[in-house]
Amino acid sequence: MGRMKASEIRELLKLLKQHDIISFAGGIPDPDLFPKAEFAAAFADIFSSGHGTDALQYSVSEGYQPLRNWIATQMADLGIPCDVDNILITPGSQQAPDYLEKLLLSKDDTALVNWPTYLGAFNAYKPHFDQISANSNRPASEYQAMASERGGAPKFAYMSVDFANPTGETMDRRARLSALDLATEMDIAIIEDAAYQSLRCDGEAIPPILALEIERTGSIEDCRSIYCGSFSKTLAPGLRVGWVCAAKSVIQPLVLMKKAADLHSSTINQIAIHKVAETGFAAQTAKIRTAYAARRDHMLAALKMHMPDGVTWTKPEGGMFIRVTLPAHLDGADLLAKFLEIQKVAFVPGLAFSLMDRTVTHCASAFLA
Amino acid sequence: MGRMKASEIRELLKLLKQHDIISFAGGIPDPDLFPKAEFAAAFADIFSSGHGTDALQYSVSEGYQPLRNWIATQMADLGIPCDVDNILITPGSQQAPDYLEKLLLSKDDTALVNWPTYLGAFNAYKPHFDQISANSNRPASEYQAMASERGGAPKFAYMSVDFANPTGETMDRRARLSALDLATEMDIAIIEDAAYQSLRCDGEAIPPILALEIERTGSIEDCRSIYCGSFSKTLAPGLRVGWVCAAKSVIQPLVLMKKAADLHSSTINQIAIHKVAETGFAAQTAKIRTAYAARRDHMLAALKMHMPDGVTWTKPEGGMFIRVTLPAHLDGADLLAKFLEIQKVAFVPGLAFSLMDRTVTHCASAFLA
Repeated sequence: MGRMKASEIRELLKLLKQHDIISFAGGIPDPDLFPKAEFAAAFADIFSSGHGTDALQYSVSEGYQPLRNWIATQMADLGIPCDVDNILITPGSQQAPDYLEKLLLSKDDTALVNWPTYLGAFNAYKPHFDQISANSNRPASEYQAMASERGGAPKFAYMSVDFANPTGETMDRRARLSALDLATEMDIAIIEDAAYQSLRCDGEAIPPILALEIERTGSIEDCRSIYCGSFSKTLAPGLRVGWVCAAKSVIQPLVLMKKAADLHSSTINQIAIHKVAETGFAAQTAKIRTAYAARRDHMLAALKMHMPDGVTWTKPEGGMFIRVTLPAHLDGADLLAKFLEIQKVAFVPGLAFSLMDRTVTHCASAFLA
Repeated sequence: MGRMKASEIRELLKLLKQHDIISFAGGIPDPDLFPKAEFAAAFADIFSSGHGTDALQYSVSEGYQPLRNWIATQMADLGIPCDVDNILITPGSQQAPDYLEKLLLSKDDTALVNWPTYLGAFNAYKPHFDQISANSNRPASEYQAMASERGGAPKFAYMSVDFANPTGETMDRRARLSALDLATEMDIAIIEDAAYQSLRCDGEAIPPILALEIERTGSIEDCRSIYCGSFSKTLAPGLRVGWVCAAKSVIQPLVLMKKAADLHSSTINQIAIHKVAETGFAAQTAKIRTAYAARRDHMLAALKMHMPDGVTWTKPEGGMFIRVTLPAHLDGADLLAKFLEIQKVAFVPGLAFSLMDRTVTHCASAFLA
């Protein structure tokens, strides 16, 4: 798969420590935009208001109830009416997919994904992948036949539908409904990694897949879809707080897995996130959207000015990623090696996202370090 | 397995919220002993000293380097000379056993344990269990034959060797060496859950199993044993910070699993734990040991005064647990139901720890709520 394959994503976070590298690699939020004063006040308030003891103690695996209530209200605003028992607090949006893989995948089973896709949650347990082609009317039987040839079955679809990592592309309503049709026919869940959902800069918001399924079934309890949210791209990733929202029949086994794995997410961080979210989430996400939109526009203008013929790129409506496609004679991994040495600039070569084929794609986060 | 089996441990943490229940259930530290002022100062200092940005940002999966260095020094003091790459930061001592189960266990494999034992890390993936009898000279071939009958093999031993949950018992040096002989002969790892290791009140400290193995092999890199530590019982559980210490060949796959599962443990909490540990760990553990010793002695005196003939109990040298054994005609689960209703006192009936047999044992944490 190319000489840099195994280590490239793994080593990316380490690159950030080299202050002479300008990194467009990875979905790393701009730390200058963190609500630092708000978090400083939240942590101080936890101790000064007499909640220090509770914040330092064990807590229930489901998560801090006031935070789960706040999230449930947010989910309702996205077209997902639910209650507190439909929410499990996780460290970021990645724990739930990791658990669901372990719960659902046997050896030789297949996961359906958009391609290229973020593979972070699949590093430890590598299923077979098949590309979900929501717009091509490929019938369920073909996915099943392909998975069967590999000795298993399609067990779930995993997709980021808004400004996905690494393409920056958004699935439109028709594509989401088509994916939902397919999943329904195959009786599998769609796991929506919604880490970037709050980062829409322009265009009209499209309901999450779970919201579209609720439109059909009438209740979250009758839905297979699973929504994985995160505060990592909005408030701060270092606290490791995200959530999963799904039918109670899905949440309950995940709670058991969490009890066995890490008991619960950090109590104090859940309380701090709740304090900051309750008073400042709307203002913080507005601030980020404005800043990221300006950087995206700057990057798109720079690409237009500097890229030679034969290079194309996506134009995301939000999030952090632009996918640059090179002409066939250029190799992204080779370019990265040169860029790191000479220009001191980092990006992720498409190879890192391409277990299935050798399509050379480049992905750049849309903001400057 | 008795009517309360499935839910009893699961629901224990929730009981703590009922302020009229005096709970001797679970390894819950006394929150009045938390170093609250020290943590308040640590969090305040993170923000005021200009480290707020780093503390809120993503960090590497291996963990915060200054904390790993501090832990490596502590491990050396326990007879485990190692360097920073032998340490992975986890949320408490339970994540590493959970990962190792997934890494090592196939369907129908067997885990060797002392019995009764804490089963928290085994809630999601239930292997077969066999009781390791370190003092009885049962040969490796017998464990292997038993596991083979169940369709698998013994894949690791999991044990808490100091004041174990729920027995309060400590394995002596001879028993540890005997377990190590057995594991060596079977070519399996011993996973030592050392959550209570720092809570010795009296008696002489016995080296961890990994230290005993290093005495034999000369280097941690030539050892199979895995040491799982935690700050949950010493500094505070709500921050979810612990560690695993092992050969680099063991740490590396765990790092990959952590990247896939939760990326890394909370950055800000690792920094806060490091600040508090660096200046206050010795004083804090001394304070806890003194307080818990007094409560243990109080509990032992109360048992001696009030328990009828036919009831026996363990006399732990530290930690949080006393195991009370009832005469055959009494059932711990029935007693718990009555005690919760009438005396408003909670403990864990032995049934919760007894998947293998119906031995009725009671466990009580050695301090008063």
